[in-house]
Amino acid sequence: MAAKLIEGAAIIGQSGGPTAVINQSLVGVIEGLRGIKAVKKVYGMRHGVDGLIKGLPLVDLNGVSSEVLDRLARTPSAALGSSRAKPTDADAPKIFEACRAADIRYFFYIGGNDSSDTCRLIYEMGVKSGYELRCFHVPKTVDNDLVCSDHTPGYGSAARYVAMAFMADDRDNASLPGIKINVVMGRNAGFLTAASALARQKEHDGPHLIYLPEVAFEADRFIEDVKGVIGKCGRCQIAVSEGIRDKEGREIGATLIHGAQTDAHGNVQLSGSGALGDSLANLIKERIKSPSGKPPRVRADTLGYMQRCWPEPSPIDASEARAAGVKAAGEAVNGATDGSIAIVRVSNHPYRIEKRLVKLTDVAAKTRTMPPEFIAPPHDVTKAFLEYARPLVGDLPSFAHLT
Amino acid sequence: MAAKLIEGAAIIGQSGGPTAVINQSLVGVIEGLRGIKAVKKVYGMRHGVDGLIKGLPLVDLNGVSSEVLDRLARTPSAALGSSRAKPTDADAPKIFEACRAADIRYFFYIGGNDSSDTCRLIYEMGVKSGYELRCFHVPKTVDNDLVCSDHTPGYGSAARYVAMAFMADDRDNASLPGIKINVVMGRNAGFLTAASALARQKEHDGPHLIYLPEVAFEADRFIEDVKGVIGKCGRCQIAVSEGIRDKEGREIGATLIHGAQTDAHGNVQLSGSGALGDSLANLIKERIKSPSGKPPRVRADTLGYMQRCWPEPSPIDASEARAAGVKAAGEAVNGATDGSIAIVRVSNHPYRIEKRLVKLTDVAAKTRTMPPEFIAPPHDVTKAFLEYARPLVGDLPSFAHLT
Repeated sequence: MAAKLIEGAAIIGQSGGPTAVINQSLVGVIEGLRGIKAVKKVYGMRHGVDGLIKGLPLVDLNGVSSEVLDRLARTPSAALGSSRAKPTDADAPKIFEACRAADIRYFFYIGGNDSSDTCRLIYEMGVKSGYELRCFHVPKTVDNDLVCSDHTPGYGSAARYVAMAFMADDRDNASLPGIKINVVMGRNAGFLTAASALARQKEHDGPHLIYLPEVAFEADRFIEDVKGVIGKCGRCQIAVSEGIRDKEGREIGATLIHGAQTDAHGNVQLSGSGALGDSLANLIKERIKSPSGKPPRVRADTLGYMQRCWPEPSPIDASEARAAGVKAAGEAVNGATDGSIAIVRVSNHPYRIEKRLVKLTDVAAKTRTMPPEFIAPPHDVTKAFLEYARPLVGDLPSFAHLT
Repeated sequence: MAAKLIEGAAIIGQSGGPTAVINQSLVGVIEGLRGIKAVKKVYGMRHGVDGLIKGLPLVDLNGVSSEVLDRLARTPSAALGSSRAKPTDADAPKIFEACRAADIRYFFYIGGNDSSDTCRLIYEMGVKSGYELRCFHVPKTVDNDLVCSDHTPGYGSAARYVAMAFMADDRDNASLPGIKINVVMGRNAGFLTAASALARQKEHDGPHLIYLPEVAFEADRFIEDVKGVIGKCGRCQIAVSEGIRDKEGREIGATLIHGAQTDAHGNVQLSGSGALGDSLANLIKERIKSPSGKPPRVRADTLGYMQRCWPEPSPIDASEARAAGVKAAGEAVNGATDGSIAIVRVSNHPYRIEKRLVKLTDVAAKTRTMPPEFIAPPHDVTKAFLEYARPLVGDLPSFAHLT
């Protein structure tokens, strides 16, 4: 992957579902390229490759003051605009024409597994078309489902939001006892739903049940689980991944959303609807009666987009997202031609990571799910998962219980 | 309302939907009673008057260490447990029996308008039954709908959550343009939904449309509003109160929740379901087509219980909630027999409030809605509202825009 440094401009894009720290990575790449003579200009593409394909004007990132960069890093969501487009062979000429016009030789793409695949595609298209474009993928995803990495920038902040939401909501549920369902993001991997377990500080604290996409969901079993918790705690707080599937692997949420939409990578809409939570709440109301014969108090919240954009990120996640951007720039400056940045944990006590350059083809379009050692079937996570996740979310508040 | 101080124990209860700072008020009452010789003991009731009626054991609050009180104040939701019960005449003997058994002469009830009515009822029942019980209502509600007060403890923190949620979600929506609906709490009053307007920092920032319960909601008008914003901004972020009503005053959300439940005060369930947001999203998908003929990207989040329990409150709200509890205790100590604490704003620049004792009958079961000078029909709020709300939520983050 190493070659001689070439002269030319760099361009940075953001892609896929944004996170609270994706702009940290953007600022990291800008900082990492600063002062490098071979890199004459740094541009931003608007709405990822979509902007290049459609010929949208590039954003001049050299002219951004350090005061604005500072604020930008603390601004959630993709400030350049994001995209879910997947470029086709027909798009290649437009992309390279846009790059040639601005003498772009360095291409940085901040995104998840679909975006790493786009980055790979563009690198390969460049090789094929004879236009030398060095392509780097900077990882981000709240789902934490990239392979090669211990964890992905964006996950820690989303996991922090989820843990704090469950902690606070559990106190709410304890004060007005009932059954509370919270639906958590994560299409294929249960990492974010699992982070709800970090909320527990005392025995009988919620979440009492955790349903991951990795464990087949059965309605009958679910009802029995809920009854069991009610019998023991008098209430029940439940974490449900939006990606739960039945035994045949069918996503339960996808079938419930009216006119659900599919993106260019074939993903069906799961977020931005309360349908899954409401349908599980209705199931409980129909199947569980309190001793008086009335349905129990059941409520469902879908944690929604706040999980990926809440503007108070995990501090460690923010700094790692920044460092991943700096690392990608550094690899380009060192003469690498392409690759993706992976985060490897070298120690847990004290928590310490390394960043490595891995092959685009090793990451592209691959999905990591929760490993068996993190799952305690049928509806919990293991201590090993808690040890894994704790350093990523940072310190959580400590609550007092009176009763 | 003033009389001689009597000797006896005090009891504190929490009632209604919890807030992020309701335990601040609890700690405030405890602190305000500390060192007062006439008040021999301080108890907590579990789950409000429900606990007294059912004979649940009282919580000894004298024994709680100052370290725990400190943590308790920062713990969201009602640590003593809450209740939505409304005591009947048949409950009176049980309540006074419980009070007599513990020699309770001071009754503090932290809650909203339904709870102030419960407090009034108990005071009047005491007078009728000849058991001298001095009753004080400490205000709390995220809805901000208590009369006599400029604002209510609990509102500032919920409004802060809403403002931050809309700020961050608007950046998300700008990065992946579409139509985004966020449903906000507030059964009768639009104060919390209106707080979404604090999110705007630049022209074209969302929320672009704000629908309050105080302004009749019409579906046709709504569709035209959304089309207008799309034409101007290419996207649309919408704030909708869970309490929006049609011209006849019917709550639109209430009819959509499967098996919706009603509490003892006659309130129909509006929260804890995504039904209203999803139904509005479906309406848009059916009625608005993009130039390609496909329905636009529409997503709905219901901000849900996080609004009332998110554990990072507005600092000013936390301190006012504490002070309201201290004030109630102080009034009792000064010989008042009953009343509710009202917050009056004496100055906006600099922001300054006073706390006053008002009659229980002036507050009980009354509802304040957004005054006309805060509403800019058909779908916005006024500058006067922003001036009113800004000091209550505290400083908000400042975001950077690149495009």
